[in-house]
Amino acid sequence: MPPKPVTAAVLVIGDEILSGRTKDKNVGFIADFLTERGIDLCEVRVVPDVIDEIVAALNALRHRYSYVFTTGGIGPTHDDVTAEAVGAAFGLPVVENPQAIELLLQRIKPEDLNAARRRMAHMPVGAALIENSVSKAPGFKIGNVIVMAGVPMIMQAMLAAVAPSLETGARTLAKSITVGNIPEGTYAADLAAIAAQNPELAIGSYPSVVNGQFANEIVVRGKDADSIAAAVAAIERVIADLRATGKDKFTFR
Amino acid sequence: MPPKPVTAAVLVIGDEILSGRTKDKNVGFIADFLTERGIDLCEVRVVPDVIDEIVAALNALRHRYSYVFTTGGIGPTHDDVTAEAVGAAFGLPVVENPQAIELLLQRIKPEDLNAARRRMAHMPVGAALIENSVSKAPGFKIGNVIVMAGVPMIMQAMLAAVAPSLETGARTLAKSITVGNIPEGTYAADLAAIAAQNPELAIGSYPSVVNGQFANEIVVRGKDADSIAAAVAAIERVIADLRATGKDKFTFR
Repeated sequence: MPPKPVTAAVLVIGDEILSGRTKDKNVGFIADFLTERGIDLCEVRVVPDVIDEIVAALNALRHRYSYVFTTGGIGPTHDDVTAEAVGAAFGLPVVENPQAIELLLQRIKPEDLNAARRRMAHMPVGAALIENSVSKAPGFKIGNVIVMAGVPMIMQAMLAAVAPSLETGARTLAKSITVGNIPEGTYAADLAAIAAQNPELAIGSYPSVVNGQFANEIVVRGKDADSIAAAVAAIERVIADLRATGKDKFTFR
Repeated sequence: MPPKPVTAAVLVIGDEILSGRTKDKNVGFIADFLTERGIDLCEVRVVPDVIDEIVAALNALRHRYSYVFTTGGIGPTHDDVTAEAVGAAFGLPVVENPQAIELLLQRIKPEDLNAARRRMAHMPVGAALIENSVSKAPGFKIGNVIVMAGVPMIMQAMLAAVAPSLETGARTLAKSITVGNIPEGTYAADLAAIAAQNPELAIGSYPSVVNGQFANEIVVRGKDADSIAAAVAAIERVIADLRATGKDKFTFR
């Protein structure tokens, strides 16, 4: 029996992403991290620093996927409302975590640990801390929700810290076939037939434009190396046939 | 009376973003584009190339925001299912658009316009075309949903083409205050007080780490230049006071 799939969503919290001020660098990093571990990233949402919006998104995602990873909104300023929102989503009181205070005191002198900085230790009761090797203020995990910072360097440190505790699934393997400038429409019908014969695989065709020419790539993804290899071989035969018969030489008008 | 806010969501459609293979470059570009036009981007979602998922996300977003911009899934291959999903979301049949066929024929010879390529002309009945100055295959607009390509260069061309037809709102103005390495916790209480006095403004504090030092920035956003200027002046006084009294010289343990 194949192992149970392990799934995830990412919830990016931050006005600054929606306004365009900050270009998100976390989603792609987390996507790679999850794919490497056999955790299937199924959905991403970006919401503003508004408690009701965070609660609604979190409750939609946490019941549906094995894990929800949040980024952003856990600092000491008034616009950092993630911990409060996570508490509200779970119906749990948000309290000062003494262990988090201890971690903050490893970096901050007691006389500097003002009310704003203490907010970084506020989290839903029962949360487990996630180490922050960069600047101490921890993330946390409550239920299946993993709450991380938005600053990429800190988010990455937290992801590394939480990694050993994550359930992992069968890794999704991927093989790429470089097609180059043969247009998608030339191989689309053959590719569709191969995809239809292999419903357990996800076969995608990805065009990009490099120096005014298409630079297309076909990617075959799935859990079983043998069926991926067979599909890749079938696709490579299609491409080789197009080249052998000169049908790859497509000219646009 | 202030003008009615114009809002938007972005729906990114693509397995390749969720697997990490492709790092999205469209959301940040669209966010900047919308902000410049006084359209408030309120939510972003990324979903896989799965019709039911696209339909559910689209129906959640299109009833809530003035516009939904989708990217991805409008090519000629089997994994391009956006047009079909948009039709399903609106309960409209997806038909071959003759005007889109004409556009395809500007680039593709009649003998090469196979069934796969004709799929690029399939769209919900009643859709209005969006010009693609890069490679002709058009995007489309149906209701308040704007359907665009995923390739950034083509997406950008479509966004430029649709721009003149978009309703615009009062532009959200933003002023940034460079705080540098004064930690957020040092100014958080004063900033919270200024934010509480200006509920019409969105005031955010954005830390980043540059060469191991915090490089913090405060951003004041809103529709009214005078109230932004007043809040910025108040924040600048807080920062100047911290510097004048030496309280900016924070040392971590």
